[in-house]
Amino acid sequence: MITLTLVGIGAGNPQHLTLQAIKALNAADVILIPRKGPGKDDLASLRRKICAQVLQTPGSELREFDLPVRDPATPDYRRRVEDWHDTIADVWLREITAALPGGGTVAFLVWGDPSLYDSTLRIAERLKGRMPMEVRVIPGITAMQALTAGHAIPLNTVGAPFIVTTGRKLRESGWPEGADTIIVMLDSGGAFEALLPHGIDIWWSAYAGMETEIRISGPLADVRDTILARRAEARASHGWIMDIYLMRKR
Amino acid sequence: MITLTLVGIGAGNPQHLTLQAIKALNAADVILIPRKGPGKDDLASLRRKICAQVLQTPGSELREFDLPVRDPATPDYRRRVEDWHDTIADVWLREITAALPGGGTVAFLVWGDPSLYDSTLRIAERLKGRMPMEVRVIPGITAMQALTAGHAIPLNTVGAPFIVTTGRKLRESGWPEGADTIIVMLDSGGAFEALLPHGIDIWWSAYAGMETEIRISGPLADVRDTILARRAEARASHGWIMDIYLMRKR
Repeated sequence: MITLTLVGIGAGNPQHLTLQAIKALNAADVILIPRKGPGKDDLASLRRKICAQVLQTPGSELREFDLPVRDPATPDYRRRVEDWHDTIADVWLREITAALPGGGTVAFLVWGDPSLYDSTLRIAERLKGRMPMEVRVIPGITAMQALTAGHAIPLNTVGAPFIVTTGRKLRESGWPEGADTIIVMLDSGGAFEALLPHGIDIWWSAYAGMETEIRISGPLADVRDTILARRAEARASHGWIMDIYLMRKR
Repeated sequence: MITLTLVGIGAGNPQHLTLQAIKALNAADVILIPRKGPGKDDLASLRRKICAQVLQTPGSELREFDLPVRDPATPDYRRRVEDWHDTIADVWLREITAALPGGGTVAFLVWGDPSLYDSTLRIAERLKGRMPMEVRVIPGITAMQALTAGHAIPLNTVGAPFIVTTGRKLRESGWPEGADTIIVMLDSGGAFEALLPHGIDIWWSAYAGMETEIRISGPLADVRDTILARRAEARASHGWIMDIYLMRKR
């Protein structure tokens, strides 16, 4: 029997770790650390840094493994993601079986929170039919919370709803019905350009929660070019970027 | 000069506290603890428990104060909330001035995260014009994350948006446009009764994150009566209830 613990580690600040997460990491027999390949090494090294910071010795064994990459030849976005998750599930199964042939507890460190635009729970679901397994989730601070904390703003206006969506959706369908506040994640860059900026305020953060955090806010019409320029610069100098923003209609 | 630190303490589990939150609480000169009056004492006592657990001695001074209550005579919901926030801002100002006449750092422990359906940032905003003040926000685990962690489910389906809304809104307007997943907070009880349940799944938690957490999930048509009955029982035995749920269209 395998217990699979998915541990939310927060949005990039090692201080986002909760006491519950520290306990769960120390309770694991094995911690599996994926290597995503060159350019994404900041993430693997953050995971290593967090483990070094909180693990007692002797304690959980750290094992690294290489993640497969998405096949760019599959044209359909959802199909490509599904195939990729199938492939990762195979890799997890092989790694877990090799590390814990007699069963035990294996932990994964999940960026942010395992519930929010993250594939870990979906991959775990695929393993359930293939080995006896219990899945436990430890919540973590999300990029959404790092965004609002950094800008010291609320997500919602009093009693009002908000929508969390993706850059892709925003480009396809424009401002969604039903809310005056939207949070945009997984944007490959400047999806807000699809909107008429009049009457919209934006709060934008790149590397939200990390030491390198960049914040820009103001009326969308006034700051959108600054954001695009700053984003391009930051991406070039870091080799990667992760950004998130909240927009509100006035 | 006052630094006001709003510290998210998570959704009721003292283990939700982050390392950043512990640091911020220990760095405060004064921690202000509101007393909400009989029936809501579980919350004040959780705050005391958290302070006892993480504060070094000698350290931050704890001061308790009585929160005013909302005036039920004001008929309009938003007006009632606005008036109440004004009154609380007056109380904060008095307490902060009394505690730190020469300036310093004052911290408040905020249930969940200060950005999510919480009034603390709005009250802080009211103080900004009345004393020289800097506001810092420390993010915390929200009830939304405690809900999804408890049920081990993702918030979103692959690449899809979701809406966070209130029980009041759901009753007024039904299922919102634009998303197949909604999270309902601040429900005074069973707002899902306003929906035709066919084709909807629900994941419901009361006291999400706490030791007394209750979880029910399944097709809405099958479990809604069970949820209503369990909710009424729990409310009667605890004297209060806080619940949250995610619903997804199949």
